[in-house]
This record gives sequence, structure tokens and C-alpha cells, in this order.
Amino acid sequence: MKISVIGAGNVATHLVTALNKISGTNILQVISRDKSHAKYLAMQVKAEYTNELSRLKPNFDLLLICTSDDALTEIVGELDVPQSKIVCHTAGSISSKIFDEKFKRYGVLYPLQTFSKNKSIDWRDVPLFLTTSDEHTEKRLLHLAKQLSKNVEVITDEQRFALHIAAVYACNFANAVMQVSQELCEKNNLDFGLLKPLIDETVSKVWKMGPKDAQTGPARRSDTTVINKHLKFLEGMKTERELYQLITQYIGERY
Amino acid sequence: MKISVIGAGNVATHLVTALNKISGTNILQVISRDKSHAKYLAMQVKAEYTNELSRLKPNFDLLLICTSDDALTEIVGELDVPQSKIVCHTAGSISSKIFDEKFKRYGVLYPLQTFSKNKSIDWRDVPLFLTTSDEHTEKRLLHLAKQLSKNVEVITDEQRFALHIAAVYACNFANAVMQVSQELCEKNNLDFGLLKPLIDETVSKVWKMGPKDAQTGPARRSDTTVINKHLKFLEGMKTERELYQLITQYIGERY
Repeated sequence: MKISVIGAGNVATHLVTALNKISGTNILQVISRDKSHAKYLAMQVKAEYTNELSRLKPNFDLLLICTSDDALTEIVGELDVPQSKIVCHTAGSISSKIFDEKFKRYGVLYPLQTFSKNKSIDWRDVPLFLTTSDEHTEKRLLHLAKQLSKNVEVITDEQRFALHIAAVYACNFANAVMQVSQELCEKNNLDFGLLKPLIDETVSKVWKMGPKDAQTGPARRSDTTVINKHLKFLEGMKTERELYQLITQYIGERY
Repeated sequence: MKISVIGAGNVATHLVTALNKISGTNILQVISRDKSHAKYLAMQVKAEYTNELSRLKPNFDLLLICTSDDALTEIVGELDVPQSKIVCHTAGSISSKIFDEKFKRYGVLYPLQTFSKNKSIDWRDVPLFLTTSDEHTEKRLLHLAKQLSKNVEVITDEQRFALHIAAVYACNFANAVMQVSQELCEKNNLDFGLLKPLIDETVSKVWKMGPKDAQTGPARRSDTTVINKHLKFLEGMKTERELYQLITQYIGERY
């Protein structure tokens, strides 16, 4: 399968370098508004590169669009692609229907993972979620996806949207509360690494007991004496304090 | 060391059964307002039990108080203990000084972990934090703590208080956002288990990169298009939606 790619950010870089390793798959062209990003990724996969969308060559089988959501909408407006080609984006919160007016064969390939530069990923473990326009496209994208990951599922646009929001809570928001925790440790000359066994056990309990039964702490016990002491300590840390109050309220509503 | 215990909840149960396994340590008496809880724990460690504080026998070396913070304050008021004995509580957010007026030798032994019934813990990996009234007490409690855990540190009351709040964010609040995530998955016929690789990678990145560099997602990118779509989806889930807004604001303030 011959693949061209629009985008050269974290998702594009991780996905394209992984696709390039599959036998029978060739990356032809990398297109990014930032020419140096396009070049850097293209060199890793021995592809051509350009920063002009008009220079996209029509010799691919699959066009992958891995850009920000705003850029994606623009690009769809400008793209001119033969009807036989498959066009596919990777965004959690954009419907596959964004392609419906202009293209015949299209889909979404959504990798449920957090990607950062300089942090490699084992793609066999990344769940991939597919939504496609038709059976032919589903078959071709399923074949490609299954060479990448051992966990591929076909879902609807609505399910992917919900999954993206669920991922924001479980990944970005969990990371954010750990950031508050780290900053509190640093301010008080405590090594944040001391919390590693606690965080490991927290995640372990989520899978063994489910988050509802796993919950402990002052909010779960409605221990207002402790909660009020903590809120007093957090005076002067406005957003962190509001967060403490709101998550405590969320937990309190559940028991 | 002869130990008597007040309290029979999660912390008391996990700690006392672990202490009972140390050679040279005997649990004498378990006291809890709930007689059946006292009996249940006492039977596991072959100790006596009672639900009346006045029946506490003075034959112990160490009295451990593992109760709610409110109960602890009451108990300290009522306790009558010879000056040679060590009195110790396990609460993160109560100063060791609560004992200062009534007792000569006292301390706090704070285990940084989340304890639930029916979920066993490897105590070698639980960080234990000590605060004590004097060198003699520190020496005796350090000796005991080191037999339990490979990670024991002496800290101040103020540090333990900050550590407790940091633990609430990293454990209870991380668990809470995972609960939102799980509920979103269930409402949309998605298996929450699909998020396991994402959550594992999130935690792995926290330790490898630190939470600030590890952050990804719409809030980190200030992607208001996606954020507004998610907020629209969350209409009707009041607290979850407020949480989405507030954590997005917290992340936005950091980049």
C-alpha cells in the first residue's frame, strides 16, 4: 500500500514511522506547512516532502491526514483527490462524514494513545479504532491496522467521540492532577518519586476493583475536618484549590 | 514490642496484620467502637478485643491509634496512659503535637498508600513517614518501621501534611477522573479496559518525562474547537462538565 501523509506532528511521526516498518507499505510523500518538520519526518521514512498542499501527487493508495482539527477542515476544502483513493484522518473528535461530500472512499483511524516526541511506543499494544465509508475501505484499512496493532475495533463516529473525551479524563486530566501533586511535593522539599508506589497501586486498583470501589480518602469518607484543613492549606493556589473542591464534590455525589 | 491498637478500619487492618508478622512483635489488644470490627481484626492477630476505651490495658509498649481524625481528637482527650509508653497515630493531616500535653513519648507513623478491604498490600514497598517527640521514640519506631518497609523517612508534621494533600491529588483525584472516564465508556457501549494501554503509558510518561512535559491533548494545545465540542457533549453531566472546564483551565495556565 502506497501512503502519503499530511501532517508531521506527534501523531503523524509515531504513526508514519510505524507504518513504514510494515512490509509492502511505502510512504511516498510527507506534507506539512512547516517545511523543516516535513523534511525531518520524510527523511526517517525515505519519502519526498513539501510544504505545499497543491504539490500532493496523486500516486498514493491512502492519504493519511494527521493534523489539528482546525487544519483538517481547511485541508478537506482544498484537497483534490481521485475517487479511487482512500482518504483517512486520525482525529478523535471529527466525524468521518467530514469527507462525505468530496470523497467516495474514506475513513478514520484513531489510535488511542498519548504521543510525545522522544518517547517510543509499542504499536502492538495501541488500540486502533476504525470508522469507514464502505466495506471495501473497511477491508483495506482493517488489513493495514491489524499489521500495526493486535487490538483493532470498528466503531461509529459517535463512539469514537465519546472515547476521545474518556481519554482526555483518563490521560490528560489524570496527568494534570499528578502535576498538582508533583508541584506540592516540590514546594515542600519532598521527592515526588515517593508517590510511585501509591500511584501504581491506584492504577492497579482501578483495574482490579473498578474506580468506584477503589476510591478512598477524605472525600470518599466525607471527612469535612480533613477537607477543610486541606482547603486552608491551599489558600493562595487558586485553581488547585477550586480543583480540590470540585473533585471532592464529584466524589461526594457518588457515595 | 507489645502493641495495642485503637481502630479496626482499612488502615488498622492492613497495618496490624502486617505488624503481627514481624518476629518479636505481639498485638495485645484491639479496641474499636464497633465490637464486631474489633473482634474480626483481633481474631486475625490472636489479640484480645473490646469496644470500650476504658478497658485498654496498660501492658503495651506502643499504642497505635488508627481512627478517623475526629475520633482521634476525642480519644486523646479520654486516654490515660503511663508516661513510659509510646502513643502513635497514623493520620496524614493531624500534627504529632496533638499528643504533646498529655504524653511524653509520641509519634506519627504515616503509610503513604491507599488501603481497601480485600486488596492485599506488599508492605516492603509502602513508604513510611515518621515524626516523633524525641530521639528515644524515633529510634524505637524507626526500628519497627524498617522491619515493615524498605522505605522509611523521618519528616516534619508540615511535610506530612503536604504529602497527604499531594496523595489526595495523585491517588483519590486521579481515581476520580478515571471514574468519569469509565462512566463515559459505559454509557457509550465501550469497554473501559480499552483505555488500559493509554493509562499505563500516561503513568509511565509521568515518571520518565515529568507530568509537565508529558502532557498532551486539547487543553495542552489550547485547541478550543475540540474543547468546545467536548463541553457540548458533556451538557447534562453538570459536575463532569465543570471538571472538564476547570482542569482545562489548570492545564492552560501552565503552558
